[in-house]
Amino acid sequence: MKINILTLFPEYFEAFVTQSIIGKAIKLGHLEVNIINFRDFSKEKHQKVDDQVYGGGDGMLLQVEPIDLALQTVPNSHKILLSPQGQTFNQAKAHDLAKYDEITLVCGHYEGFDERVIHFIDEELSVGDYILTGGEIPAMAVAEAVARLVPGVLKKGSHQNESFEGDGLLDYPQYTRPAEYKGLKVPEILLSGNHALISKWREENAYLKTLKNRKDIIERKKHEN
Amino acid sequence: MKINILTLFPEYFEAFVTQSIIGKAIKLGHLEVNIINFRDFSKEKHQKVDDQVYGGGDGMLLQVEPIDLALQTVPNSHKILLSPQGQTFNQAKAHDLAKYDEITLVCGHYEGFDERVIHFIDEELSVGDYILTGGEIPAMAVAEAVARLVPGVLKKGSHQNESFEGDGLLDYPQYTRPAEYKGLKVPEILLSGNHALISKWREENAYLKTLKNRKDIIERKKHEN
Repeated sequence: MKINILTLFPEYFEAFVTQSIIGKAIKLGHLEVNIINFRDFSKEKHQKVDDQVYGGGDGMLLQVEPIDLALQTVPNSHKILLSPQGQTFNQAKAHDLAKYDEITLVCGHYEGFDERVIHFIDEELSVGDYILTGGEIPAMAVAEAVARLVPGVLKKGSHQNESFEGDGLLDYPQYTRPAEYKGLKVPEILLSGNHALISKWREENAYLKTLKNRKDIIERKKHEN
Repeated sequence: MKINILTLFPEYFEAFVTQSIIGKAIKLGHLEVNIINFRDFSKEKHQKVDDQVYGGGDGMLLQVEPIDLALQTVPNSHKILLSPQGQTFNQAKAHDLAKYDEITLVCGHYEGFDERVIHFIDEELSVGDYILTGGEIPAMAVAEAVARLVPGVLKKGSHQNESFEGDGLLDYPQYTRPAEYKGLKVPEILLSGNHALISKWREENAYLKTLKNRKDIIERKKHEN
């Protein structure tokens, strides 16, 4: 899979493409990450890419032309604009995007984009209901969530018990050594070796954790049934 | 404000603390970012910090002790564990966190944490319903969203018309030069200079964009009224 990232801040991605599973996936040939600085596509003096807002308002907006010109270099990719105005990215969408051979992530900065950019992209996604300075962190989030689903990138089985996969609940609580730390003990059932009981405990506790932290997921599941 | 980040991958944050508004806020003295490698707090051979899952399961879990020991070095901070099992981070929570003098963000990696870690933190937050390999990207998202709200970091007025602020709707569409690009024109009203009409157009179009991309926000507002 190939992931193109259009940004004004290529330095942001230096560690991202060398560290952890992304770096490993690139080395193993499962993934290609292509960072494009759309400032290179400016036709204005000093490679200017932003201008004032029509109708008045603070700050500067990114102009449509340099983004359009940069996107013309990746014509066969599925093009995603990262912005807080987009539809909400989630694990189901990560699975959808992992099916493409090539995706392009467009990062904003400054106050926002000229709205006409949406005519040159396929969809607009938001990674959450909070405001960041640019699309760089969201692009890393989407790229990593999608890359993990590309065959070969993770070991088989690693996905199965994760939050938002399978039953859509949060993951069950997990424990490792020591069996006791500062008086806090691992639940005895997990040390019992009884796989049927362990499995039942995990199912119940995934539900309880979801009920405690994300009642909205339980409510949504009720409506679906 | 001081933001501590506990991670196994300090390299991830190298660009983060020098680029863009975070780098600027640090230089101006509005912000201090302190990266702590909790591997330094391992008492085991080769600074090991993970072990197998009690009761069986793939992958390795982060152990509670090195995280507890690292957290003891930041006793006066508000401590946040980043995990997909947490409550959902949003702009209201960013405002809450911006009130603290010092916060600590704990990043996971591998398959997850020993659940007992939650006894040593104040809250568990998720940045969205998708799975990443570790808490590094979520920590950057939370740190940036919070840092933007620290007085002095952004110019006054920059926050007012953003998505999720004020009326809770998405931001209205914005346009910059040129007035026409490939036949796509800026809405005439925005060029009219009539501020009352522009204000009305923006209000209507913020609503329409929210209705199109985030019907859930409109539904939620209806329930609140």
